[in-house]
Amino acid sequence: MFNFIFQNPVKIVFGKGQIAAIACEVPQGARVLVTYGGGSVEKNGTLAQVRNALKGRAIVEFGGIGPNPTYETLMKAVELGRKEKIDFALAVGGGSVIDGTKFIVAAIPFDGEPWDILSKAASIKMALPFGTVLTLPATGSEMNCGAVISRKETKDKLVFLDPKVFPLFSVLDPTTTYSLPPRQVTNGIVDSFVHVMEQYLTFPAHAPLQDRFAESILQTLIEVGPKTLANPQDYDARSSLIWCATMALNGLIGQGVPQDWSTHMIGHELTALYGLDHGQTLAMLLPANMRVRQKAKHAKLLQYAHRVWNVHESSERNMIDEAIKQTAAFFEAIGAPTTMKDHGLTCDVEGVLAQLKRHNLTALGERRDVTPDVFRQILELI
Amino acid sequence: MFNFIFQNPVKIVFGKGQIAAIACEVPQGARVLVTYGGGSVEKNGTLAQVRNALKGRAIVEFGGIGPNPTYETLMKAVELGRKEKIDFALAVGGGSVIDGTKFIVAAIPFDGEPWDILSKAASIKMALPFGTVLTLPATGSEMNCGAVISRKETKDKLVFLDPKVFPLFSVLDPTTTYSLPPRQVTNGIVDSFVHVMEQYLTFPAHAPLQDRFAESILQTLIEVGPKTLANPQDYDARSSLIWCATMALNGLIGQGVPQDWSTHMIGHELTALYGLDHGQTLAMLLPANMRVRQKAKHAKLLQYAHRVWNVHESSERNMIDEAIKQTAAFFEAIGAPTTMKDHGLTCDVEGVLAQLKRHNLTALGERRDVTPDVFRQILELI
Repeated sequence: MFNFIFQNPVKIVFGKGQIAAIACEVPQGARVLVTYGGGSVEKNGTLAQVRNALKGRAIVEFGGIGPNPTYETLMKAVELGRKEKIDFALAVGGGSVIDGTKFIVAAIPFDGEPWDILSKAASIKMALPFGTVLTLPATGSEMNCGAVISRKETKDKLVFLDPKVFPLFSVLDPTTTYSLPPRQVTNGIVDSFVHVMEQYLTFPAHAPLQDRFAESILQTLIEVGPKTLANPQDYDARSSLIWCATMALNGLIGQGVPQDWSTHMIGHELTALYGLDHGQTLAMLLPANMRVRQKAKHAKLLQYAHRVWNVHESSERNMIDEAIKQTAAFFEAIGAPTTMKDHGLTCDVEGVLAQLKRHNLTALGERRDVTPDVFRQILELI
Repeated sequence: MFNFIFQNPVKIVFGKGQIAAIACEVPQGARVLVTYGGGSVEKNGTLAQVRNALKGRAIVEFGGIGPNPTYETLMKAVELGRKEKIDFALAVGGGSVIDGTKFIVAAIPFDGEPWDILSKAASIKMALPFGTVLTLPATGSEMNCGAVISRKETKDKLVFLDPKVFPLFSVLDPTTTYSLPPRQVTNGIVDSFVHVMEQYLTFPAHAPLQDRFAESILQTLIEVGPKTLANPQDYDARSSLIWCATMALNGLIGQGVPQDWSTHMIGHELTALYGLDHGQTLAMLLPANMRVRQKAKHAKLLQYAHRVWNVHESSERNMIDEAIKQTAAFFEAIGAPTTMKDHGLTCDVEGVLAQLKRHNLTALGERRDVTPDVFRQILELI
């Protein structure tokens, strides 16, 4: 096991009816910027519950933070927040709204060009405090301190991580997710699954508890994913999906072990170039990545085949083949295609390679051996 | 899944060589009370590393906090701390030292009789900040806000829980545990195992991820327990034992599910009456508790038999029998006897019942149906 430092201070308030608890979490007298996305939280009544819980505080609302939140849109919220002298933010939505809000709370007090926080990893001295009301289980952003922000102008999609942007609290009320379109639920299942795989499917590092925690999330996603798609109002299935999504990327399972993240980094470029959903890119790239790198990942692939898919084949080679097939079949079964053709697209391999190069992504993966040559092999399979 | 609120702010600093990191965690200019136990941390060099890391701060040392830390001893540390105007504490040891230090940091600024914090659940307005250097994996105290304190005079053993006594940080360096006597390692494995069982072996609550996380810890303890006893300097096995012990009682696996804790509550009385180690009492009481309550715990016992012990018997009854036998056999194999006779003792059933009654413990367990009649059946089996 590698040395590690782990701390996650986010307060999770979980369950039906818990939005009212915000009243105890947001200071009386706060000037709150409430951020949200396309308006589904208005339609399904979540925003009304939030407004009710925030009574007595000054509220400024900023909607329209779309998927793959853009610097262009977020800077409007930054201006608004500065003008209105807000001192607290509340993100009501999924990972995009929460990620966007992390950028907003870091950018408002930032002295300089806020894009530098992303493009130059400029250090932030402070961020405004904020909470979240999660309405889409997927990214884990509700319990971590990372954000992914895009810039339309340059087709960039960049990551920043800072302990100053941990949410103070996150309300996870499964009933707020009942009205989600199936496509978003599917994307969330795939995203959570791949988050786990990035931290698990590497090389053995004498960390059996981390391995089993990771396998626990994978097995639970396989169990509850189809259930929650078939019956969105199955409270228990939806609760488990949410808890899996949160645990998949709150830091816990990745402590003391190697991490990959090449599937995500390549996926970001496909989203930037083709406008594909993040989850859609991952569903194609993970099986392809596993196929191309099966030699390097041999030991963990065998463990994955055995423990997660209960595969017992005649040879190790067949076990691994079967596990990769089952992974792709799982994605397909929950409505996530695994090829560009299924999306009516053809992959411009050279174009994606050029984007990766432009972002200085030339050696990814747990051993930094996922080079442009490997990118090419992966991209040729999707 | 039940509604829940979860927050655990403890910073874990894990791995060999990490004691030096204390220098960054304890404020410059702090007046630090360093607490420890019987002196093993002096002998094995841990205390020297701590003193070195704390250079530049005023240090007051208080040793001699024994197993089942007593109010009588701890009040001497409280007096010392008040006299020396300490403003930070650092617990160097196992669960007893850490639990004792939680009481000390709560009692120093407490206005009134500190015993009330335990006996009357008197609320504490503040506690001094403190960190820990864990040298014995067992209680999980390094990452939770609970403490168990005894009073010699009255043979009481009482619990207090308060978010104000979360450690700020805990250093978990596996090498500091190499010199532990096997009996303490055994006790730690049993304690961690039973912590998980108290939160897992109840009734199904539609919480499949919590179940699998719990099973993950049990399976890992079964895997690494014998290994780490056979070879105390196997760094990886010891690291996994430590991480299991911390995860077993940091709140995570118990969120949203019913909890039992009757084995612990009865065990505390056996320790108070017979001076048995905490882990020794649990190794006897858990299998007895499982036997007596197998009807009420039927569904989870079957799941436990299947997933943790991989038992496949002809009938459900036989599966459960086998799982209980395997549990007892595991304890025996790692050196923890499962009967009072093995300890050269006879259980004074009436005496234990009287103690439980005196502490108002008359209806325990996940359904509050573990009454004196059930205590009697359990005690008669050990």
